[in-house]
Amino acid sequence: MELDRAHVTIVGLGLMGASLARALRTQGPMITGVDTDPETLRLAGQLRIVDRVEKDLAGALERCDLAILAVPVRTCVGLIERMGRDVPAPQRLLDLGSTKSAILDAMQHLPPACDPLGGHPMCGKETSGLQSSDPTLYAGATFALTPLERTSEEMLRVGKDLVRALGARPLIIGPGDHDRLVAYSSHLPFLSAAGLMLALEHLGRSDQRLWDLLGPGFRDSSRLAGGNVPMMMDILSTNRSQIEAALNDMIGALVELQTMLASGDETALADQLREAQGRRRWLEVDHPSGRQG
Amino acid sequence: MELDRAHVTIVGLGLMGASLARALRTQGPMITGVDTDPETLRLAGQLRIVDRVEKDLAGALERCDLAILAVPVRTCVGLIERMGRDVPAPQRLLDLGSTKSAILDAMQHLPPACDPLGGHPMCGKETSGLQSSDPTLYAGATFALTPLERTSEEMLRVGKDLVRALGARPLIIGPGDHDRLVAYSSHLPFLSAAGLMLALEHLGRSDQRLWDLLGPGFRDSSRLAGGNVPMMMDILSTNRSQIEAALNDMIGALVELQTMLASGDETALADQLREAQGRRRWLEVDHPSGRQG
Repeated sequence: MELDRAHVTIVGLGLMGASLARALRTQGPMITGVDTDPETLRLAGQLRIVDRVEKDLAGALERCDLAILAVPVRTCVGLIERMGRDVPAPQRLLDLGSTKSAILDAMQHLPPACDPLGGHPMCGKETSGLQSSDPTLYAGATFALTPLERTSEEMLRVGKDLVRALGARPLIIGPGDHDRLVAYSSHLPFLSAAGLMLALEHLGRSDQRLWDLLGPGFRDSSRLAGGNVPMMMDILSTNRSQIEAALNDMIGALVELQTMLASGDETALADQLREAQGRRRWLEVDHPSGRQG
Repeated sequence: MELDRAHVTIVGLGLMGASLARALRTQGPMITGVDTDPETLRLAGQLRIVDRVEKDLAGALERCDLAILAVPVRTCVGLIERMGRDVPAPQRLLDLGSTKSAILDAMQHLPPACDPLGGHPMCGKETSGLQSSDPTLYAGATFALTPLERTSEEMLRVGKDLVRALGARPLIIGPGDHDRLVAYSSHLPFLSAAGLMLALEHLGRSDQRLWDLLGPGFRDSSRLAGGNVPMMMDILSTNRSQIEAALNDMIGALVELQTMLASGDETALADQLREAQGRRRWLEVDHPSGRQG
């Protein structure tokens, strides 16, 4: 299969699916968009985000060379479980889910004629939905690809071609390693922002002046807490043990800082803060990936 | 004293002092800038950030109508303790320190002829120094003013005039309340960012792929960890017990989220995340202060 001459079906025309469609459409493939929301389908047609809009999931999966699932993790698992049962399994299947173990477990049971590959682009926005879509969303992002044992060499090449067509960088990684790393790099920052907001919420209820005294940078620190809760619940619920470990490490780091502060051990405290600062500055200068899309 | 005809001495021409000078200079006062760094003084003169640069702290304090201390908290305390001993106490004194109890304790012991007032503008930047200064840094920010019992009505009016001249909003508050609130709104976000970086640092040393898999928004969440460590050490060390309490609340919130995750109590977890989300969105829409300067 050559991407520029393929028929691609994108299931889910939210932020991720619609942005992918807009980036890919200029490069040749014929794109069909499927969504359960009639208003999203109407808009996708009106704004010409895809070549064709389709309500009939079964038909759209059957007719395509490659189906891409751009829906929340548990919806994704549910869809994969239906394939080969009440809807056809597509010839080739890629998903964009934020956790990979649960999705790859489901992919294992797909009919043999289907060639599946897991995927996870490290990009996003605070706002969701087709109307937030942006054809440059994937540009410069790392795009994890998690092949199964059954994934063909051809399908892995198609995946890499797709990633490069989006301007992203493919990173081939196993699902367990992926889930462990993103628990720290993506899910922990969200929970940290939520924990920060909850700590403030408690005090802010008894003293409203708190909200007038927000420090510079507070908005940045807490921004992720404003994100989509149902989508996060899917992510958290399908990566529980890894996230528990990440939370443990963060709680441990905070307890250590607290202990140093309480005991007045300024040398040790400054050392820890300098270690955090050094890595943070290294990321800014030497490793400027992971920017907000 | 009328601000627009006053002689103001600013001690410390870093980000805060130089930005204040640039905002104020267009409004009439004659501004002298003092700094211990010869290069900063040279630049301040060359860029015409102040009317006069001065190495002689004693002379600059003696001759002004109002002295403004724009130096780190413990340097500020040290300077105040010297006033009336080896350097003259100015007629009127305002400081910009990030914690207020230690500074107001020192101000209590100033000679009776000096009229002191504590201040803390809720603005800043990640970058420091005169070259990062910006005349609009204070615009729109809350500017806490913490009067002492000995502070005259006139001095409080001068403080409010100054705050308004900078385009900021005065908030009169006691030093204890101030320090308790900023422990949550400003110092906790910094420590939370540092704790997040330290949790990642541990894993990132054994698996470098972590740095390729940073989630969108990670940079925002961790940004404050890249800030100035000696300045933060001054802040943390002069507000220890309040910050310990704030850290306790945040650790408690994270432990609670972890427990809900571990027990699979999705309803309770989603409730907590929605509470955090609701407040975060309220801040964005209804309370857009506290922006990064």
